[in-house]
Formats: sequence, structure tokens, C-alpha cells
Amino acid sequence: MTSQISPEQSAREEELLARVLGSFEHTPDERLRYLLQELVTHLHTFVRTVRLTEPEWNAAIEFLTRVGHMTNQHRQEFVLLSDVLGVSMQTVAVNNEAAGNATEATVLGPFFAQDAPHIENGGDISGGAPGEPAWVEGTVKSVGGAPIPGARIEVWEAGEDGHYDVQHHDGRVYGRARLFADENGEFRFWGLFPTPYPIPDDGPVGDLLQATGRSPYRAAHLHFMVSAPGYRTLVTHIFVRGDELLDKDSVFGVKDSLVHDWSHHSAAEPTPDGRDLRGRRWARVRFDVVLAPGQSVDYGALMA
Amino acid sequence: MTSQISPEQSAREEELLARVLGSFEHTPDERLRYLLQELVTHLHTFVRTVRLTEPEWNAAIEFLTRVGHMTNQHRQEFVLLSDVLGVSMQTVAVNNEAAGNATEATVLGPFFAQDAPHIENGGDISGGAPGEPAWVEGTVKSVGGAPIPGARIEVWEAGEDGHYDVQHHDGRVYGRARLFADENGEFRFWGLFPTPYPIPDDGPVGDLLQATGRSPYRAAHLHFMVSAPGYRTLVTHIFVRGDELLDKDSVFGVKDSLVHDWSHHSAAEPTPDGRDLRGRRWARVRFDVVLAPGQSVDYGALMA
Repeated sequence: MTSQISPEQSAREEELLARVLGSFEHTPDERLRYLLQELVTHLHTFVRTVRLTEPEWNAAIEFLTRVGHMTNQHRQEFVLLSDVLGVSMQTVAVNNEAAGNATEATVLGPFFAQDAPHIENGGDISGGAPGEPAWVEGTVKSVGGAPIPGARIEVWEAGEDGHYDVQHHDGRVYGRARLFADENGEFRFWGLFPTPYPIPDDGPVGDLLQATGRSPYRAAHLHFMVSAPGYRTLVTHIFVRGDELLDKDSVFGVKDSLVHDWSHHSAAEPTPDGRDLRGRRWARVRFDVVLAPGQSVDYGALMA
Repeated sequence: MTSQISPEQSAREEELLARVLGSFEHTPDERLRYLLQELVTHLHTFVRTVRLTEPEWNAAIEFLTRVGHMTNQHRQEFVLLSDVLGVSMQTVAVNNEAAGNATEATVLGPFFAQDAPHIENGGDISGGAPGEPAWVEGTVKSVGGAPIPGARIEVWEAGEDGHYDVQHHDGRVYGRARLFADENGEFRFWGLFPTPYPIPDDGPVGDLLQATGRSPYRAAHLHFMVSAPGYRTLVTHIFVRGDELLDKDSVFGVKDSLVHDWSHHSAAEPTPDGRDLRGRRWARVRFDVVLAPGQSVDYGALMA
């Protein structure tokens, strides 16, 4: 509160907050009551601290109305809003607490699909999409260092044009696959060197980014979801060291520990698996995954 | 924060918040930057304090999506949400700070109309709507006690069935008028004894009220907007002493100082202005208005 608020005025504001908190006192679900009472406390404290004006309140209502009307079966503007305010990433953080050297989690994003095609270890996820081929390999281990044979690995990424397959709404499938670690916990596949792309910015969230001088671009990344019984399901990305967007990712998904060195190789250099890339240059990265102990989470069901 | 959060985990959460706050550092509009940084701080602190789960985050996104899709040109579900969380009333509170004995403000509500019919002092605002006639009188004064001749008074209320004229969407007009205080700052008119009514509760906000055991009803009230040059425009209601809903008004609009004694009179008692009510009983209330010094606010333009 600023200092010029009179004791009488403060008392009125406190009394109002107490009345609102009291109205939730008989909520049968204890967790819901706690969530609402905490939310109300923060919202009221916000209004009181900033001395929100009535035109500002109106602008907030109009903004939320636009977000609501922008949202449809293909576009979730509320998720975008949560993303650009860092709320999605903070939710990821509190649900994936630091556990030894376990790999850090980051946002799931809207482009995961449950029914990705299965490939063998060493296969190609690109589905024919254009881009620089990238050899990705690593081992899945526990915090204690034990390999996790058979760990399930889902990977997905945008094509070179910055669009995921599902953004075309025509059923095409590219840039995604499901594979399993081998008996040594190792995995390897051909993907595409990742490309930066903007989040959809033609709606109110885009206007917010513009009004605040922020970029809608995400740092280039490749998505992973790694799971195995007895381990906390890991949802993460790997990023590209040297990408100029690392410190201004529009959804705050970048963690230093997730930034990897990708090497680039001329067409003349032999590929790790002897594959003939017909004169194309290629890239290579290693990503060793460490899973925290815990429960599997079915993110597909969560999203549905 | 709960005590079992490790220092490393806390540091990660703090670092993320700092990164999000930093992203707004170059917002050209200083006030917008401040509002967003405060909002982000409260949202993140909420997520961290309650350790928001991913299913809860999903439920919040779904709830807001429903609120957005419920909102159209006749229904503002975001305003209802703000109302039932007491955010609207807290915004009113911070914009109408205590000023001596100035009459307290309360919510504007969605049913104000700019083009209410003008009536002479002593006229009838009911527009033929059914209900118990109520004689309302008072004086408009400054905090110093000086009458404010010519003060502009707008009054509006629901009919006996709990609906305002504008809720019928067919252009009918009842239960509202504009009049002016006389040369002594006095005003008087015939209205209707107010009736409680529920806020619209067939949408997500209604579901929230139900899940928390709250009533959608508003305490019975008569709306006033009183303005004069050099004074802060007062938006308020008067309530009815004895109304059972006073301590559970769904939008927290009730202030003790706004609860008035309404007397009821049989048809046999003569009316204050000698009007013949054709055998109907009638009510009577006095409401003396005290305006704080300040600026007029054009709430009609604010709402448009």
C-alpha cells in the first residue's frame, strides 16, 4: 500500500477482503477453498497496491473478452497468455522440483500428439519434412546413474518453416515419433536441426507482446517427453547453443542446462550410422537424460 | 512457500520470476510496465504458494475458456467473475477513498443506461412496472454540509420480477430516470420498493458459486449516480434494513452505511405529495447524499 492511504480507507479495503474470503468458508472441497482464498487475496492485493483505476479495470475486462473470443478448437489464447506471463513455466517448475542431477523440465506446449508414429531406435522422425538432418543420441539414466532400458521417448518439432504438422489441420504427420531406449538405456534417431518460430501473435496476446516491446519468437528447440515406470515423466526441450533467442524466449522455456552444443558437418563427412544423405550437410547433438524418481504422468490425458 | 522446498528449487523459481519481470523492462508505457510486473509477481507467488498442480492449471484454462465463450453483447461473464471475487468492489473502493462523511460508493453493475428519461423532482421513475410504490427523498450536500443545488441524480432499479428493463432487449424502459436536485439540494421521486434478484447463474460463474456453496442473489437495492461539477461522481445503492441477504450479497456491494430504514404504509395513510395510489400500500425512505470533492467521472463513456 502507498503511504497516503488513510487508516479508515485501509480498514474499508481490509474489511471487504475479509468479507470475500469469508464467502468461500463453506466450500465443501478444501483444496478449492484454499485455492480461491489465495487467489482472491492476491487479486485484491494487486488492485490495492497498484490502485487500479476504473478505466484500467475496463481495459482488463475487454482484454480478457478478446482472449476468450480468440480461443477456439485450434487456438488456445488463454494458454498463450499463461505462457507469455511465465505462469505456465512456473507451474512446470513447481511440479518438477529439483532432484539431484535430474534433467530440468520445460513447457509441454500445444503441439504434443498422443498418436505419434513408432520408429525403431536409429530411425527418422522427420516424415520427409525439409530441414537439415540432425543425428540425436543419448542415454536415459536414473539420478543414481543406472541406465533405464526400454524408457519411452517421444520427440516432436516444427519443420524448417516453423510450423508443426498439427498446425496444418489436414492430418499430415511429420517431425514426431515415439521410440524406446535399448537394453543399455541408449537411444538415437534422425531429426531436423530446429528452427525458431513465433507463437501465434495476431491476437490480443500478440498485442500485449507488441505493447511491451517483446518478441513473439521461441528459441529453436526439439521437444522430448521421456517416461518409465517408477520415474517422474519428464517433459522438456533441448535448445541450441548460440541461438540469439535463448535469453528472450517468449514463453520462458529456456534453462541453461537444456542448451546443448550441436555440431554441423559437411556432406563429405560420414554419418554416424553410415546413412547416405545424398549430398546434404547434417548436424549432431548428444542429450543424456536423467529421470527423477516419481510417478508417471499421462500428459496426453491431461491435455484431452 | 511451504518449508519443504529446497533452496535450489526456490532459487529456480525466483530466477524464473526475475526473468519474466525482466522481459517487461522495456515496456514504453511506464504504468503498463508497473501493472504487468505487479500482476506477474502476484500470479507467480500464487502458483508457488499453492503449488498449483498441472490438472488444476488445466481446469483454470478450461474455466476461463468457458467464461470467454459465455460472454457476448448481452452477457459479460468476466464482469460477473470479477464481481463474485470481490475484485469489482475492491476497484470501486480504491477509486472512492474515504473522505469525511462522504456517502460510500458501491458497484455500478451492468444495468446503467445513459439515456434514462428525464423526470421533474417528485415524478415517478417506475414507468408503469409493477411493485410497491416507494417515496424516496433526500438532500445532496457537500462534506462541509452545503447543499448542492442542481445536482444530477440518476436512479435505476429492477422491477418486482427481479429484471431490469434492459434485460428484455426489446427497447422497453422502466425503473429508471434522471432528475435534478432543486435550489435547496433536495430531491424526491416515486420509485418501487426494491426486490432481491440473482445474478445470471447459468454459466461458469454460476457453477463456481454452486461449487463454493454461495448464493447468486443480490440484496435488494436501488441504484444512484449523483454528480455535480467540482465533486467526485458517486455511484452507489441504497439497501433495505432487515433484508436477509445483506450479509451474503453475491457481489459484496453492501456497506453498513448504505442500509436504510424503509417504512411501509397502508393505503389509508396519505402520501407525502398527496398522490392517489388507488388503494395500494406504499413505502418511504430518506437518503441524504454527501458528495466528496473531486472530479466528475463519465461512467456512461467508461462503459461504452
